[in-house]
Amino acid sequence: MKSVGFIGLGHMGAPMALNILKADFKLKVFDLNPSAVRTLSDAGATTVSSALEAANDVDVLITMLPSSPHVKQLYLGEDGLFENISGQPLIIDCSTIAPDAAKEVAEAAKRRGLEMLDAPVSGGVAGASAGTLTFIIGGKSEALEKGRPFFECMGKNIFHAGGNGAGQVAKICNNMLLAVLMAGTAEALQLGVNNGLDPKVLSDIMNKSSGNNWCLDVYNPYPGVMDNAPAARDYDGGFLVDLMNKDLGLAAEAMLSSKSSTPLGSLAKSLYALHASKGHGGLDFSSIQKLFQPE
Amino acid sequence: MKSVGFIGLGHMGAPMALNILKADFKLKVFDLNPSAVRTLSDAGATTVSSALEAANDVDVLITMLPSSPHVKQLYLGEDGLFENISGQPLIIDCSTIAPDAAKEVAEAAKRRGLEMLDAPVSGGVAGASAGTLTFIIGGKSEALEKGRPFFECMGKNIFHAGGNGAGQVAKICNNMLLAVLMAGTAEALQLGVNNGLDPKVLSDIMNKSSGNNWCLDVYNPYPGVMDNAPAARDYDGGFLVDLMNKDLGLAAEAMLSSKSSTPLGSLAKSLYALHASKGHGGLDFSSIQKLFQPE
Amino acid sequence: MKSVGFIGLGHMGAPMALNILKADFKLKVFDLNPSAVRTLSDAGATTVSSALEAANDVDVLITMLPSSPHVKQLYLGEDGLFENISGQPLIIDCSTIAPDAAKEVAEAAKRRGLEMLDAPVSGGVAGASAGTLTFIIGGKSEALEKGRPFFECMGKNIFHAGGNGAGQVAKICNNMLLAVLMAGTAEALQLGVNNGLDPKVLSDIMNKSSGNNWCLDVYNPYPGVMDNAPAARDYDGGFLVDLMNKDLGLAAEAMLSSKSSTPLGSLAKSLYALHASKGHGGLDFSSIQKLFQPE
Amino acid sequence: MKSVGFIGLGHMGAPMALNILKADFKLKVFDLNPSAVRTLSDAGATTVSSALEAANDVDVLITMLPSSPHVKQLYLGEDGLFENISGQPLIIDCSTIAPDAAKEVAEAAKRRGLEMLDAPVSGGVAGASAGTLTFIIGGKSEALEKGRPFFECMGKNIFHAGGNGAGQVAKICNNMLLAVLMAGTAEALQLGVNNGLDPKVLSDIMNKSSGNNWCLDVYNPYPGVMDNAPAARDYDGGFLVDLMNKDLGLAAEAMLSSKSSTPLGSLAKSLYALHASKGHGGLDFSSIQKLFQPE
Repeated sequence: MKSVGFIGLGHMGAPMALNILKADFKLKVFDLNPSAVRTLSDAGATTVSSALEAANDVDVLITMLPSSPHVKQLYLGEDGLFENISGQPLIIDCSTIAPDAAKEVAEAAKRRGLEMLDAPVSGGVAGASAGTLTFIIGGKSEALEKGRPFFECMGKNIFHAGGNGAGQVAKICNNMLLAVLMAGTAEALQLGVNNGLDPKVLSDIMNKSSGNNWCLDVYNPYPGVMDNAPAARDYDGGFLVDLMNKDLGLAAEAMLSSKSSTPLGSLAKSLYALHASKGHGGLDFSSIQKLFQPE
Repeated sequence: MKSVGFIGLGHMGAPMALNILKADFKLKVFDLNPSAVRTLSDAGATTVSSALEAANDVDVLITMLPSSPHVKQLYLGEDGLFENISGQPLIIDCSTIAPDAAKEVAEAAKRRGLEMLDAPVSGGVAGASAGTLTFIIGGKSEALEKGRPFFECMGKNIFHAGGNGAGQVAKICNNMLLAVLMAGTAEALQLGVNNGLDPKVLSDIMNKSSGNNWCLDVYNPYPGVMDNAPAARDYDGGFLVDLMNKDLGLAAEAMLSSKSSTPLGSLAKSLYALHASKGHGGLDFSSIQKLFQPE
Repeated sequence: MKSVGFIGLGHMGAPMALNILKADFKLKVFDLNPSAVRTLSDAGATTVSSALEAANDVDVLITMLPSSPHVKQLYLGEDGLFENISGQPLIIDCSTIAPDAAKEVAEAAKRRGLEMLDAPVSGGVAGASAGTLTFIIGGKSEALEKGRPFFECMGKNIFHAGGNGAGQVAKICNNMLLAVLMAGTAEALQLGVNNGLDPKVLSDIMNKSSGNNWCLDVYNPYPGVMDNAPAARDYDGGFLVDLMNKDLGLAAEAMLSSKSSTPLGSLAKSLYALHASKGHGGLDFSSIQKLFQPE
Repeated sequence: MKSVGFIGLGHMGAPMALNILKADFKLKVFDLNPSAVRTLSDAGATTVSSALEAANDVDVLITMLPSSPHVKQLYLGEDGLFENISGQPLIIDCSTIAPDAAKEVAEAAKRRGLEMLDAPVSGGVAGASAGTLTFIIGGKSEALEKGRPFFECMGKNIFHAGGNGAGQVAKICNNMLLAVLMAGTAEALQLGVNNGLDPKVLSDIMNKSSGNNWCLDVYNPYPGVMDNAPAARDYDGGFLVDLMNKDLGLAAEAMLSSKSSTPLGSLAKSLYALHASKGHGGLDFSSIQKLFQPE
């Protein structure tokens, strides 16, 4: 039986780790938050008192952390894992971080003789719980194949984007485009409503025409159009505005470092930052509709 | 056998009229361009020497003209149809024009005792020829039902958007959103490529993720990704940049008259205007990719 | 003594007409609003009961109306001035309207044998009262020279922008740029404040550096920086957001008809439309600062 | 006689150091580029073979480096100055870098018992040669006063923006606003020209109206309007597009870290990145006019 170490049991990490357990892998977990650890402990995971202990002598190490500095600190910092780890785990970092940070850590792993994948996810807490996440993976094909059984018990779609860092780049591009789709859909719906259309009728027409996109398919931002979307419950839950702003910040960094021009993505960033600054950071990101609704 | 009058035999109008003929309706046609008339004449249509003659004593009158002033001139101008027409045809204007113009003409029709629909289309010349257009219709349900046999021989999808003018509004909203989708997809793909990704791999990932939209499905703007898209033939044909600019102009007018805010749609308009000003107005609208490609 | 007819005694027109009176010209006035007429009557103007009577048999006719349709209706409509006017006045339209409308009316004037100038103003109600308006004039030089004594009693700066319509184009370009300056200054000040700077210190530095512009000179949007600016009195008075939106709408029309690309101007339009839609249309346009201030 | 160490003799640093020499301070210089060193050596400066030697035992140390990593490496890196320096110089870093980097280095200086100022400049190579630079300074007032004699021999305007890092923030805000002014002026001029105006006439009108800004005053981007501007010499020289892009990148980072919304600044960044990607990075930044000129 393969053994797994898992570091980072937040909103996403905890249900992901639970799915590892359900698949009958042996699991060691660590998080600074004791209540997060307890949930996993209750479910049968071994708990340890440091990140290093979670990482030592396992077949696979999975990490799920908030941002680039956390990941760099864990692996490369003073008393970091790469200086002290025992064993030769395949390392899978599921955090969404800057591509440059992902590459830097992967290169350090390589110097240390370890295989590493960047594997950011999409699908949110619901997907993490249901085991239906999408993994967008950067690293070598052989490493991805070694990791496949673990990805498969946590997710449904597994994409290979390219070498180390490519998983992060692909996720960032996707989420920048998503922000453009959502804000663009919201303003198109509002333009229709302001000109007398029924938002449901307009949504149906665009959904079957060339305006079709993921937001119209499954995540309509206009209240009253779609029963199961966050718009139906005052934009509670889902993918938060603050998280979209974090991903748009990573897109901005990728734009800067590659000297790219992203006019629509940058404008979506400005609109989401404006929306957050008015106190809406904790709402679902489809709440950008509120920005366009007249008072 | 029902009789149809058809005015405006351009790139779109001519194949639409041919599909009316094929459905065994009796057809009278008029256009200022004699060669356009000849094609229909050869196919069995009756030709007449004025718009008024084409409109007199038919069951249905269909018009397909370039812009608002043409439509207003035809129906409301000096010697316009509404002053002189004989008979009580159902009037179907398939032109893409300003919603306010569509409403104005429909109100004049009503005062004259005539039923009128605004029925702009999408699907391009290919859809017009194949009889697979999408009609987005504004006007009364009963009028739409009377017109249905005629829509069905020219198109596949028939949407009822609301009262008079609503067909124009819905088409304008859809096409503004389409411009945002296309430009947003192009810049996201370029951001990925500039950061080392393969555009085909990135397209596949986003197509199956939350970045999915009509452009990734059937109209990928990046050369080499999709064999049948205009990008595969140097952006020849398809839906021209100049036509997208016309529709974005109508969206701008609708934005102004309704005091709406359309930041992404307006930015897409600026990008398409910039693209056209550099000599690319005659290319397919997915050529906006070229704007983002480094030289 | 020269005689002047004046039509349109609104917030701007009334004080302008008063300055004509003060300069000892003979003045006939007309407005649909009786209280506006009374103010001028009390000051010594002759009042008449129709626009036509105000226009008949004067040396100069000045009009100051809200928008293009008003101007076209007055001059070109049924029972319009050009069909009925007696005498050969120099016509000066001070309304801010679409350049195409200004040209159309000027051409009709020419066919009627009348000289006409488009002469939109800047300087607001304060400038109208103080007689310090700026006139931006389109039309022939000789006509401008004939009008000069009248411009000089109402304003301080008199610019000749070109032929008929050019006054409108120049005013529109200036005000589009002004919207960009104001919104750009507001977001730069907010960026500084959000990073710990004192807005007054930052304003002083930029005012003496390459960021300098009219807003930093005389109209600082950040509260507490400038004692006499609208920002010091909760953005009361001044040049209203609704009026800026009207001028930005004219800029959008000029952009569309000339196939220009105005990315920053269009974005400023979207921001001002957003700001107005949240109930701020009646505030001074420097209140765009509020859009950027965190709640 | 006070002694100065100067590290970084590039296009800006070399003429700044020459002005230190001219003011009869004792000067030690270091740069990795021998030809840059030779110019200063010929002018009477002492040359040394390492940055540390240049920094040791002087009254004031001035550094002028390309970007944040260079500054951090010099002061904080392995064998960095702060670990090894002898003496207690006032440290003045004139590089334009990220405010967070400036703060980090200043805090390390403080722990080491050294006073430090961030003092980015504006005015370009011409200002550096003429000794007319503007210094925008972050740090303590007393430190600024100690440095004043040195600033005064290199520049004309000396601003105190606030504590450490504030100099960088103020410069970044100014330059972001400058990019908005320049691009906004260029598109307003083009809109006027596309509608038939003479760019010189329009420039004069806006220069005396509310559209006035630094670009219209001294740096008109339209060819033929201003004899001494870069536009008169095919945009040769001046402040390069690549440097504007660097500063707009710093603005983007400051926007991200402070969760600000900078829609116009971000759009200007996208436009300048687009312009650079078409091969214009080496032109003066007023060449953004070319983006708007039809082909």
